[in-house]
Amino acid sequence: MSLIEPRTLKGFRDYLPEAMIPRERLIDTARRVYRSYGFVPIDTPALEYEEILAGKGGTESDKQMYRFEDHGGRRVALRFDLTVPLARFVAMYSNELGLPFKRYHIASVWRGENTQRGRYREFMQCDFDTIGSENLTSDIETALVIHDLFKALGLEATIHVNNRRLLNGVLARLELDGKSAGVLRALDKLEKVGPEKVTEELQTQAGATPAQVREILALAAVTGTNDEILRQLEPLVASSELGRDGLAQLRELIGAVRAVGVDEQRVRIDVSIARGLDYYTGTVFETSLDALPSIGSVCSGGRYDNLAQLYTKERLPGIGASLGLDRLLAAMEELGLVEKRRTGASTLLVHFDEARRTDYLRLAARLRAAGVGVEFYPEPKKLGNQLKYADRRGFRFAIVAGDNEWKSGRCQVKTLATGATIDAPMFDAAGAAHPELVALLA
Amino acid sequence: MSLIEPRTLKGFRDYLPEAMIPRERLIDTARRVYRSYGFVPIDTPALEYEEILAGKGGTESDKQMYRFEDHGGRRVALRFDLTVPLARFVAMYSNELGLPFKRYHIASVWRGENTQRGRYREFMQCDFDTIGSENLTSDIETALVIHDLFKALGLEATIHVNNRRLLNGVLARLELDGKSAGVLRALDKLEKVGPEKVTEELQTQAGATPAQVREILALAAVTGTNDEILRQLEPLVASSELGRDGLAQLRELIGAVRAVGVDEQRVRIDVSIARGLDYYTGTVFETSLDALPSIGSVCSGGRYDNLAQLYTKERLPGIGASLGLDRLLAAMEELGLVEKRRTGASTLLVHFDEARRTDYLRLAARLRAAGVGVEFYPEPKKLGNQLKYADRRGFRFAIVAGDNEWKSGRCQVKTLATGATIDAPMFDAAGAAHPELVALLA
Repeated sequence: MSLIEPRTLKGFRDYLPEAMIPRERLIDTARRVYRSYGFVPIDTPALEYEEILAGKGGTESDKQMYRFEDHGGRRVALRFDLTVPLARFVAMYSNELGLPFKRYHIASVWRGENTQRGRYREFMQCDFDTIGSENLTSDIETALVIHDLFKALGLEATIHVNNRRLLNGVLARLELDGKSAGVLRALDKLEKVGPEKVTEELQTQAGATPAQVREILALAAVTGTNDEILRQLEPLVASSELGRDGLAQLRELIGAVRAVGVDEQRVRIDVSIARGLDYYTGTVFETSLDALPSIGSVCSGGRYDNLAQLYTKERLPGIGASLGLDRLLAAMEELGLVEKRRTGASTLLVHFDEARRTDYLRLAARLRAAGVGVEFYPEPKKLGNQLKYADRRGFRFAIVAGDNEWKSGRCQVKTLATGATIDAPMFDAAGAAHPELVALLA
Repeated sequence: MSLIEPRTLKGFRDYLPEAMIPRERLIDTARRVYRSYGFVPIDTPALEYEEILAGKGGTESDKQMYRFEDHGGRRVALRFDLTVPLARFVAMYSNELGLPFKRYHIASVWRGENTQRGRYREFMQCDFDTIGSENLTSDIETALVIHDLFKALGLEATIHVNNRRLLNGVLARLELDGKSAGVLRALDKLEKVGPEKVTEELQTQAGATPAQVREILALAAVTGTNDEILRQLEPLVASSELGRDGLAQLRELIGAVRAVGVDEQRVRIDVSIARGLDYYTGTVFETSLDALPSIGSVCSGGRYDNLAQLYTKERLPGIGASLGLDRLLAAMEELGLVEKRRTGASTLLVHFDEARRTDYLRLAARLRAAGVGVEFYPEPKKLGNQLKYADRRGFRFAIVAGDNEWKSGRCQVKTLATGATIDAPMFDAAGAAHPELVALLA
C-alpha cells in the first residue's frame, strides 16, 4: 500500500505539547480573570448559515470566509470572528439571557487570508463583552479586566485608551461626519507613513480642506501624561458637545482606574488610536507589551452602540475586548517567557522491575492522591534511557526504586536540574504516600 | 433594512452559560486527571486535506465528512474525529516527540450525520492515548485514568473491560479470523437483538457453522464476578495461544487495578464488549454510569497495533480512550447533577449610588485580590431589580452598600438562598478587603 504524505494545509499548524502547554495556561488565566468579574462562557457553532455570517457583506473578512454547500444543500460558512456569532446569539436569546449580559468566548476562527509571518488561517480568539449597558462603569471595568489579565500573566503591559467621541465630535463640527470611515483609515496609518502622507489621504479620500486636516491632525498629535493630555484636549473639543462628552468619559475612566490603585503607567490616554472600524462609538482600547511593543496590540476593543442590528430591532449597546492569544504567545516566546516543558506531570517514576509493576502503580496512585503529578514509565528500560526521556520532557524529579529500595521501603528522589539525589520513605503507616516524599516533590 | 433571521444550522447548537459552565468544569477535570498521569495536550487544525482525513475511505465517517474546495482550489475537509489527526500528527513528528508519547486532545469534530435525539453534527471529543509502548502497563494505566476521572467528577461509573485476543484467538482456531469484522458487527448487537438473531447473522454474514456459532456465543455469554469470569474463560480459550495470552492480560490488569486499591465494583470484566472496529487488538473498554446505564458508554477505547499505517512505515502501537463529553453532560443533566449557575463569580456588588462608583470599584478589586469573584452591577438601578438579577444568575451573595454603609465603613452581605443579612467591615487598616468580609463570602 502506498503511503499518504502526512502534512497540514498552508496557513494551518499543529500545536505540539511545548506550544500547547503555555497556550492552555494562557487560556486558563484569561478565564479565571474573566470569571472573577462575573463574565460567563458561551460557545457557538463553528459552522453557520453563510447568510448570517456574511451579514451585509462586502467586508475584507467576508471575502476571506470559508464557505461551501453542506450535505443538505445549505450555503454554510466557518465563522471568521466571534463578534458576528455573538450578535446572532444575543439577538436569539436576549430575553432568556437577561441584560446586562457579560460573556466570554474562547474559540477558533478561520480566515482564508494570504499567509504572512505570524498570520494563520486558523487562530483562536479570546473575547469578553458586556452587553446591554451604556454606563461608563463597563468601560472602566473593561480596562480593569485587561489590567488584571496581564498582571496575572506576569507581563508588563500598557493599555492605550482613547474615546471615539473626541474625533467624531470634531468631525461633526467640521461637517465631515459622513467621512469618518475614510478619516479613520487614514489616521490608522499615521504612525506608519507619517503626517504628510496622511494629510494627502485625508484631502483626496475624505475631501478635507487643509484647515480641516490641521484640526484633525492636531487632535491626533496630543501627547504627554494623562493629565497633560486631558488639559490639551479641552480647547480642541470645546465647541462640540459630543467631543466634550468624550473628554469627560476619558477623564472619568482615568480617574476611576487611578482610584482603584492601578499604576498610572499601565493605563495611558493615546489619542492616536483610531481602531479602524466604524463600529466603535466611545471608549477604544489597544494594549502593548512594554518589553515588545513592536508586536502590536495584544488586546483591543471598545464600545459600540448597537451590536446586533442585522438580526434584531432591539438596540444592544455594549463594550468588549479581544485578547490576541496567538500573538501574545508568539511575543512570550520571543521574550523567552515560555517554559520548555513537555510533560503534564512533575515527576517520572522510573520503571526498573516489571515484577514490581503493581507496587510502582500503587506508589504513583498514592502520590497523585497527594497532589503530585506522576508519570510511570510504561516498561522496564535501562535507567539511562529513562532519565534521558525525563530530561527531554522537562520533568523536575525522577523517582528511582529497585529491589533494594522496595525491600527497605525508601526510594531515591533525583532532582533532574542538579542531579542531586535524596532518599525518602515511600509510604506512611496508613499506606498513603509518605509526607516526607510528598514534600520533596512539591 | 430587513432583518436576517438569527438561527443555527440543523444539528448544531449554541451553548448558553448554564450549559457551558459545567462543560468547562468537565474539561478542566479531565485535563487535570490526564496531566496527573503525564499526558500532554496537543491541537491540530480543524481543516485538513481531504485525502488525509479520508484515509482509505469507504467508512461511515467518510461519508459524513464535511468537505469542500478552499480558496486555493485544494480539496479540504473538517476532521470527523481526533484519531485520524493523531495518526497523521504522530507520523509527522514521531522523532521530535519521542516515544512513548502520551497525549490528550480536547476539541470539536464534525459529522454530517442524520440528527437524532442527543446526536449533533458538531460535538467535542476528549481523547487520551499512549503511543509507542506495547507494555500492559499502559492498559492498566488507561483503566486507572478512567477510574480517576469519574471519581474526580463525583460519579459512580463501572469500567467494562474485555480483551480482543480472547475472541480473535477463538476465531483463529475456528479458522474464522478473516471474518472478524462481520463477527464483531454481529456480536455488538447481542444485547439489543438477542442470541437468535445474532446466530442467524453469524451464519449468513460470517459463514459460521452452528458449532462455531455455539463457541463464539459461549465466549460472549460468560458472566459473574471478575474471578468467576476468569475461571470460566480458561477452558474456552485453552487451545489458542492468542486467547490464552488475552486471558493472562485480562487477569493481570484486574489484579493490578485491585492491588492499587480500586474498588472491585468499578472495573468489571465484560466479555460481551466487542467495540465494533477491527482496529482494536487487545484490551478494550467501555464505561457506564451506575445511575444511568441506559445512556450507553461515556468513555470507550482500547489497544491498537498500528496507529498510523496510512502515513508512515513506522509501526506505532498504542492504547487510548475517549471521554464522551456531550453524552456525559446530557447524563449529568438528566441526573440533576448540573448546578444551574449562570455567573462566573460568587458575589454581586449592588450599585446604589453612581457618585460612589470608584469606591465600589475599589471594593470589588480588593475582594478579587483576596480571591472572591465579584460582579459589580454596571448602573444604579432599584435594589429589587438588582437582587432579582442576582437570583436569576445564581449568585450566592449580594453586597449592599449605600451612603450610610460607606460612611460607617460596613456593608450588608446578603446570602441569596436564605435571605439572611449580616453586616461586615469593608476594608482593613491597610486598605485591603477586610478578612471578616472575605470569610463571609468564602
